Amino acid sequence: MLRVELSAFLDDYISVIDNNQLELWSSFFVDDCLYEIISKENEDASMPAPLMRCEGIAMIRDRVVSLRNANIYEFPIYRHFISGLALKRGDADSVDLTASYVVINTSPAGFSSVYQAGRYYDRLVQTEGGWRIKSKRAVYETLKVQTLLAFPI
Amino acid sequence: MLRVELSAFLDDYISVIDNNQLELWSSFFVDDCLYEIISKENEDASMPAPLMRCEGIAMIRDRVVSLRNANIYEFPIYRHFISGLALKRGDADSVDLTASYVVINTSPAGFSSVYQAGRYYDRLVQTEGGWRIKSKRAVYETLKVQTLLAFPI
Amino acid sequence: MLRVELSAFLDDYISVIDNNQLELWSSFFVDDCLYEIISKENEDASMPAPLMRCEGIAMIRDRVVSLRNANIYEFPIYRHFISGLALKRGDADSVDLTASYVVINTSPAGFSSVYQAGRYYDRLVQTEGGWRIKSKRAVYETLKVQTLLAFPI
Repeated sequence: MLRVELSAFLDDYISVIDNNQLELWSSFFVDDCLYEIISKENEDASMPAPLMRCEGIAMIRDRVVSLRNANIYEFPIYRHFISGLALKRGDADSVDLTASYVVINTSPAGFSSVYQAGRYYDRLVQTEGGWRIKSKRAVYETLKVQTLLAFPI
Repeated sequence: MLRVELSAFLDDYISVIDNNQLELWSSFFVDDCLYEIISKENEDASMPAPLMRCEGIAMIRDRVVSLRNANIYEFPIYRHFISGLALKRGDADSVDLTASYVVINTSPAGFSSVYQAGRYYDRLVQTEGGWRIKSKRAVYETLKVQTLLAFPI
Repeated sequence: MLRVELSAFLDDYISVIDNNQLELWSSFFVDDCLYEIISKENEDASMPAPLMRCEGIAMIRDRVVSLRNANIYEFPIYRHFISGLALKRGDADSVDLTASYVVINTSPAGFSSVYQAGRYYDRLVQTEGGWRIKSKRAVYETLKVQTLLAFPI
């Protein structure tokens, strides 16, 4: 049942991004969280040069404000798809979750393509309000990524 | 558990389309149903010019007959993938379901690509035979779509 | 609940392939198993010329050894996505499972694309260690596939 529950949690997470509800994105994290998007190439070489890195919920919220204010062109539309969920129980209140993802991107011109494939490495913790993200790392294989204005994955 | 149940319902729905069992497609709908495929562009502009629109189960069945009779060339093969399921209970016997989809299309020549990405906006109702579709709207972002012979999504 | 259970089984299966744990691949099969990757074109024409065919778990293990030893170039990274799960109970200890799949491939150069779409036709059997694969056939529609060094699907 934990698998079904966390699968629904991941589904809610990607829905917020995919349906342009970015203001809800931070609600999935605890206050002292880590969020990172990093290429597998850098990860494997232990080169800590992430495409995006947010330490703490304030940076996560700032990121959304930046994206909204930097909206000088139309946003792409992302559609995330998830598979290969794997769980490892930590202590009673935490779980390590990994899952593969692919993001299908539709450009403002209406062209849809594979934008980014990779794997999530998440640590979730149980809070009074339910599961929250303590840390989330999106490690992507695809090298052709937009670096101008990094969007949440 | 409703989530698991409706996820299975969606899975059955796409299987029928993806496995060339179009004659079973209408069995997912109630008699007085609505089915529509419309671009997000038109949807956002409130321009009601859908790519396909069927009012009532008879039109849904007619559509399949047309597709079968118009089979002057080989059909493409669709593979639907679903994510980001979100549910909102209406009254006791109905539920609003939205979900992202991507259709991977393999052409008769054997070339596979991202064909269409979008989001379903469904209203399901509980019947004696189980869940059925009262209305289903597939709102797609991808602008490069075949309009010659619209296939169910 | 069987659906949830077998969906998790499939998820575990693809995780092993997608996360470069090929040595665990054989653990999903019973000893006297069949594994086959075949094009839909050949399948429909009853032409038994599979891209890969392993009879028995020893051939499955050999295949992994070959792939590791033949590793003269970097491996691609696969990400499998599954949908449209359909189950048919055989006797008490077996079940026929079919499901659509798409494999997103990222080349060593970092380019991600749709690599192969198709459908699994599996027979699973209940063993003391849980569900195992008696036979698995991956029937793919995509004709543009690497034949040099066939990787598990």
